[in-house]
Amino acid sequence: MRGFNPKTGAFRESPTRRIDRIREEAVKRGLDIIMLSTGQPSIPPPIEAREALARDLLAPYDRKLYSYTPSRGYSSTIEAVILEMRRWGVELERDQVTLTAGGQSALFGTIMSLVSEGNEVVVLDPMYFGYWPLLDYAGARVRIVETSIDEGFQPEEERLKEALSSETRALIIVTPDNPTGRVISRETARLIADLAVEKDFWIIVDEAYRTLVYEGEHTYIYNYAPEHTIALNTFSKDPGIPGWRLGFAYGPKSAVERIRLFVQETVYCPPSVAQRLVEHYLRDDETRMSHLNMVRREYARRRDALLEAIDEMLPGARYVKPGGGMFVYVDLSRILRGRLDSEALAEMLLREKGVATVPGTYFSRRGGEFLRLSFVGEPPERLREAVSRMRALLKEKGLL
Amino acid sequence: MRGFNPKTGAFRESPTRRIDRIREEAVKRGLDIIMLSTGQPSIPPPIEAREALARDLLAPYDRKLYSYTPSRGYSSTIEAVILEMRRWGVELERDQVTLTAGGQSALFGTIMSLVSEGNEVVVLDPMYFGYWPLLDYAGARVRIVETSIDEGFQPEEERLKEALSSETRALIIVTPDNPTGRVISRETARLIADLAVEKDFWIIVDEAYRTLVYEGEHTYIYNYAPEHTIALNTFSKDPGIPGWRLGFAYGPKSAVERIRLFVQETVYCPPSVAQRLVEHYLRDDETRMSHLNMVRREYARRRDALLEAIDEMLPGARYVKPGGGMFVYVDLSRILRGRLDSEALAEMLLREKGVATVPGTYFSRRGGEFLRLSFVGEPPERLREAVSRMRALLKEKGLL
Repeated sequence: MRGFNPKTGAFRESPTRRIDRIREEAVKRGLDIIMLSTGQPSIPPPIEAREALARDLLAPYDRKLYSYTPSRGYSSTIEAVILEMRRWGVELERDQVTLTAGGQSALFGTIMSLVSEGNEVVVLDPMYFGYWPLLDYAGARVRIVETSIDEGFQPEEERLKEALSSETRALIIVTPDNPTGRVISRETARLIADLAVEKDFWIIVDEAYRTLVYEGEHTYIYNYAPEHTIALNTFSKDPGIPGWRLGFAYGPKSAVERIRLFVQETVYCPPSVAQRLVEHYLRDDETRMSHLNMVRREYARRRDALLEAIDEMLPGARYVKPGGGMFVYVDLSRILRGRLDSEALAEMLLREKGVATVPGTYFSRRGGEFLRLSFVGEPPERLREAVSRMRALLKEKGLL
Repeated sequence: MRGFNPKTGAFRESPTRRIDRIREEAVKRGLDIIMLSTGQPSIPPPIEAREALARDLLAPYDRKLYSYTPSRGYSSTIEAVILEMRRWGVELERDQVTLTAGGQSALFGTIMSLVSEGNEVVVLDPMYFGYWPLLDYAGARVRIVETSIDEGFQPEEERLKEALSSETRALIIVTPDNPTGRVISRETARLIADLAVEKDFWIIVDEAYRTLVYEGEHTYIYNYAPEHTIALNTFSKDPGIPGWRLGFAYGPKSAVERIRLFVQETVYCPPSVAQRLVEHYLRDDETRMSHLNMVRREYARRRDALLEAIDEMLPGARYVKPGGGMFVYVDLSRILRGRLDSEALAEMLLREKGVATVPGTYFSRRGGEFLRLSFVGEPPERLREAVSRMRALLKEKGLL
């Protein structure tokens, strides 16, 4: 009786992978592609860390570099993570941290540990699309709190209070946000923490972009509700090793222990070689902070170039200036006016102009006239060129 | 309403991790530990592959080395895997292979893709303990086919025929085996394949140790039942990067596609840096085969040293000479005669003599007088020393 588990129907092709496929086809046609679709860095980890790892590789036999690690990760790497978090004002004990095989692994372990069939999970809209298949697979009942461009995508107090109740198992919040770049304000963080304690639900806070903040600062919700907060982190964005698959989760021991067991059962241990690189990176304080500052300056410069180009060349386009992260979420409704939806627009842009973007529909049912544009993957002049191509397409289609 | 998904109760501490903990404590007491418990190589990948990777790390910006890869893995790595399998007589198309984050990731994706709540899964006993939590989590009804030392741990035809029916969703088979080192004979492979086609069930064949065969050869069951076989592989054992987390699964496209989606949802993609090392390894044919031959010679030499020491110093101990893999599964029943069980013995050996082994109870309900001894982690003289310490302990306890 061969067959498949029908529950796997929750899993589909990642939407950005579909874009990758169209892109490959466009590349074959010789089109010069400008990548505004990517959610990954374009700057490698600092040479000091890479050199240190290269030396380790050439050593006669550095056994720990190759061997299985504890499923929680090496103690030395966890120690480095604890010092890292202390730098940002978060005090953690060893049992409160588990390394994971990238942010996705932290996400999978967290959702599967906390959410049972039928549990209510509250999410903000728009939201990173990676959560949907996991919530489907877990059998969650999802309740959506809408945020709007007019409020800077900050969740509104009354709407939060209405949605969150003693029926809530968990609230998912991404800050700095993907796709909007919104950084949760201190007041909103405090409000969410107070509600979590009052109504007794989990806060799942995705902090993948926490060090990539360009104005103001990231608020660590954990500090306001340590017994109720599970924070998901990654080394994909800083120091920039998305393919190496290393992240971590921190929070109450009971939750972290379950996430660790998911890491054990899904991948056995977080990759040893990524742990080594991250140790080299985090332990060299000076190199680390100067690298991070360089990256932030560069990404902020690119963000500004992109926003300037939009202001100049796409009259009517609206956005909230992203305080952090990698993306700007652009509202084109005053240009498109219902004549074209964002999926069709994104496909035309890619096929006809070689500009890769992600349509807003991937993040929200209300995203039909939004595009997510990444500003980290291309230098300023290419970002400008991309917007100029968008303008040209919109003109050709009689939309501008 | 905070809380946890009760299904996570299926996941517990990995048994070998418990041994690791006792070992750490013994190390602290200054005991010299001989590791017969490990399931990982003690020889690093060839220097040529490590040098090539070190060069890549020092390049200005080798983007593909750091970036997310397709969830199936880079096409170039898959191409290398297809050539590797062709070398061993298995012809695969691209859609029939997906890379995974190590063998565990292939295992998790396969079990979760194929097995629904209540499905019957047939396993051989003894069996690698890593399958139990996954089968529990999937809600499988497990049916056990016992194998015995007297039959060289080859599953017996009548017992297979009795257990396998049109109710069977899948049969799990590990070859070369962990813990017994048994290599499935060509006849048994053929029999299983014929039954799979006749009764229409999946064969899940775990080939983690397929290249580490010392006598005879590994039979690729896939070739006998390509529509019914999903084969799980890893690069942990050859070229020896267990911590880097890279493996692969191959089989019918429909199954492989689902395993790929599990990789996507649990870890997003197989680690890029491991893919790079494996490409360097597999593409340099001469280095690869001379490395593999060196490793096989060395492990066979160690195996022989261990078996010789057992013959000499532990009269009454029985085993089947392992044809492949990393372990010998030793029957001590004629020595212990019900006076001590293997868990207590393993703990005494570790605490009092610094010899780390894995008790047979981790692999079988009938393992109460068996120990699994790894022969790959220590040089011959240390293997001998370990057996001599076992002998001393058994003498001290009045058992020998």
